[in-house]
Amino acid sequence: PKKSCANVTNLAKNAKKLGQDDPRRITHSFKVGLALTLVSMLFYVQPLYDSFGSSTMWAIMTVVVVMEFSVGATLGKGINRMLATLLGGSLGFGVQQLATLTEKEDHSIVIAFSLFIIGAIMTFVRFFPGVKAKYDYGFSIFILTFSLVSISSYRDDYIQILACKRLLTIIIGSFLAMIVSICIWPVWIGEDLHNLVASNIEKLGDFLEGLGEDYFDESDGTKTVTNKSFADKYETVLNSKTREETMANLAGWEACHGRFRFRHPWKQYLKVGNLTRKCAYKIEALDCYISNDPGNKIKDSCQYAGIESGKALKELSSAIKSMTWFSTTTKAHIANAKGAIKSLNSLVKENTREGIDVLEIVPILAVASLLTDVIISIQRISEAVDE
Amino acid sequence: PKKSCANVTNLAKNAKKLGQDDPRRITHSFKVGLALTLVSMLFYVQPLYDSFGSSTMWAIMTVVVVMEFSVGATLGKGINRMLATLLGGSLGFGVQQLATLTEKEDHSIVIAFSLFIIGAIMTFVRFFPGVKAKYDYGFSIFILTFSLVSISSYRDDYIQILACKRLLTIIIGSFLAMIVSICIWPVWIGEDLHNLVASNIEKLGDFLEGLGEDYFDESDGTKTVTNKSFADKYETVLNSKTREETMANLAGWEACHGRFRFRHPWKQYLKVGNLTRKCAYKIEALDCYISNDPGNKIKDSCQYAGIESGKALKELSSAIKSMTWFSTTTKAHIANAKGAIKSLNSLVKENTREGIDVLEIVPILAVASLLTDVIISIQRISEAVDE
Repeated sequence: PKKSCANVTNLAKNAKKLGQDDPRRITHSFKVGLALTLVSMLFYVQPLYDSFGSSTMWAIMTVVVVMEFSVGATLGKGINRMLATLLGGSLGFGVQQLATLTEKEDHSIVIAFSLFIIGAIMTFVRFFPGVKAKYDYGFSIFILTFSLVSISSYRDDYIQILACKRLLTIIIGSFLAMIVSICIWPVWIGEDLHNLVASNIEKLGDFLEGLGEDYFDESDGTKTVTNKSFADKYETVLNSKTREETMANLAGWEACHGRFRFRHPWKQYLKVGNLTRKCAYKIEALDCYISNDPGNKIKDSCQYAGIESGKALKELSSAIKSMTWFSTTTKAHIANAKGAIKSLNSLVKENTREGIDVLEIVPILAVASLLTDVIISIQRISEAVDE
Repeated sequence: PKKSCANVTNLAKNAKKLGQDDPRRITHSFKVGLALTLVSMLFYVQPLYDSFGSSTMWAIMTVVVVMEFSVGATLGKGINRMLATLLGGSLGFGVQQLATLTEKEDHSIVIAFSLFIIGAIMTFVRFFPGVKAKYDYGFSIFILTFSLVSISSYRDDYIQILACKRLLTIIIGSFLAMIVSICIWPVWIGEDLHNLVASNIEKLGDFLEGLGEDYFDESDGTKTVTNKSFADKYETVLNSKTREETMANLAGWEACHGRFRFRHPWKQYLKVGNLTRKCAYKIEALDCYISNDPGNKIKDSCQYAGIESGKALKELSSAIKSMTWFSTTTKAHIANAKGAIKSLNSLVKENTREGIDVLEIVPILAVASLLTDVIISIQRISEAVDE
């Protein structure tokens, strides 16, 4: 009993954390509940039920399946479902008409054969990358509707009327889900993508700005702790590709809203995201040298270069966020960082003339060289943001 | 007409390529067609149709939705669907019983209220990461079945019999899909994961072995071309995390088969995969220096280190593939690579004593230092594989 009690409090804590991390999860849950209650009205109101009958259940199914977290996903699924039902149903009728041309005993053979062929072809089409990204759900519903209509026609002569009723209830359900999704606390996935890309750049900027403290203020006990949290921060930036691509696909379904124009260049976000990740790979390599003890005067230049490039990244991030563009300050920061690396290099040159051991300064040199790469990739990001 | 003709040939080419890249896509398409044809028998055979009636359509829906590319995904969806239908239907009856306790006019209020509450709670539960990974589909079906049963009970008094028939047809459909998926050219996602992890390691090994040719045989025109293909190869290794996690989740549904024991440690693959990616990040950083011209005697050591560490990685990859473990040869390769880096360092030391310009050898030093890191991460991978 004690253990299960602990389990319950644990569960409650997790649930609270989930809600606090993103309060939109709670509102989304209520939205689903609301949409379900609204669609159930089709059952309670006598005139509505009289016209649709048991087809009403298709409206409920549609609401449950189509209601997704973001507006983009809901619109995509709703449009996919409506179109696929229409097209799949039409093809089903076509097969039925074809079957009636043959003798009664052959009907089942014609239907079974067409099921096999259409099912196989449509399943293969789903493997096309472009189809998979945007219309996978639609093709699944297409196969479903086609199978139902063509098979049912074998048993039921009034299948036309039934199928039309179903299509109508599916349209009602889809529109209900889309309206609830858009009108009540909408979650725009495009905005999420926008913020994700900007915050990823900001995270890298934070790290570079913090380079001074973490790298060079060595030998205090808290170091390992902060290092760990850095690796965690990275994890999300480094592995954001799949997530960004899904989001950009879904964002394509969202028409213009707020700050985003119709046909907003979502692909540009993927480009910026790719460059951000490339920059992150370099910083990840840089991160390894943090554990090494430089113990050298050169650190000031390194630190300065880190801070300046960090500032440039942050500038870029806020430029994306506000969708305005101040290239001059960013360029100044990049130039400063480059200058720091240059003075670092000349410092190294002087030091080696004084006969210092080269192997000792290898980590420093590696850091400097990686920082140069980081700065170059920052420049590339800034060019991509500019577009 | 010419343009559309070109489009068609283009489409055919793409389709051919899709099929050649993975012939299992073609067999899967035929499997779906076969499963659809088999399930349609429920309609044609009179005694079967007499017992199930129009509920037969749920079997068709189940087959279309449950049939997935891999055995793991099919099993996961099938089991989720059957359990969720059973539980959701039971809860729906519970609500119906609760409603009959009240007066006739209040029935709709009780049902609408419970719909709102259960819909909202279940939607929120779907956000738990553990639930999302394995039971997301089940929860969606749970909400669906619960809504259908509880709402239908308002109109239909024989809902129990209808719901039981539906449950039965859903079980038939799920089993049909699972049997076709397992018995005819099965696609084990666990094996795919196994091969993916091994081939990712192998790709890195290939790159390191090829380091000599690409990095050091500079100044021929083909260089940029090969560089490009490297970056492409990387793309998949660097961004494999999400894919690997999905695959490991699905693999959890597959019971023992072939070389894999029941409760195969799929998580270990994720660990090896993570370490592989970390190693890839370092190599990605190394890759930047390929464009620099070293022009130095030191290159032999670098090349040797690259080849040896590449061999070690390939050894690891084939160890994973064959599930046998020869640690001695791998260790020898790692030791060789380390020795090469050591001799490289001492070479650098000698050269600088002779008063060479330090800045010139910075790229070399960076390569050496990165190679050391690569070797360390290879050691980590080999430890993880060993477990």
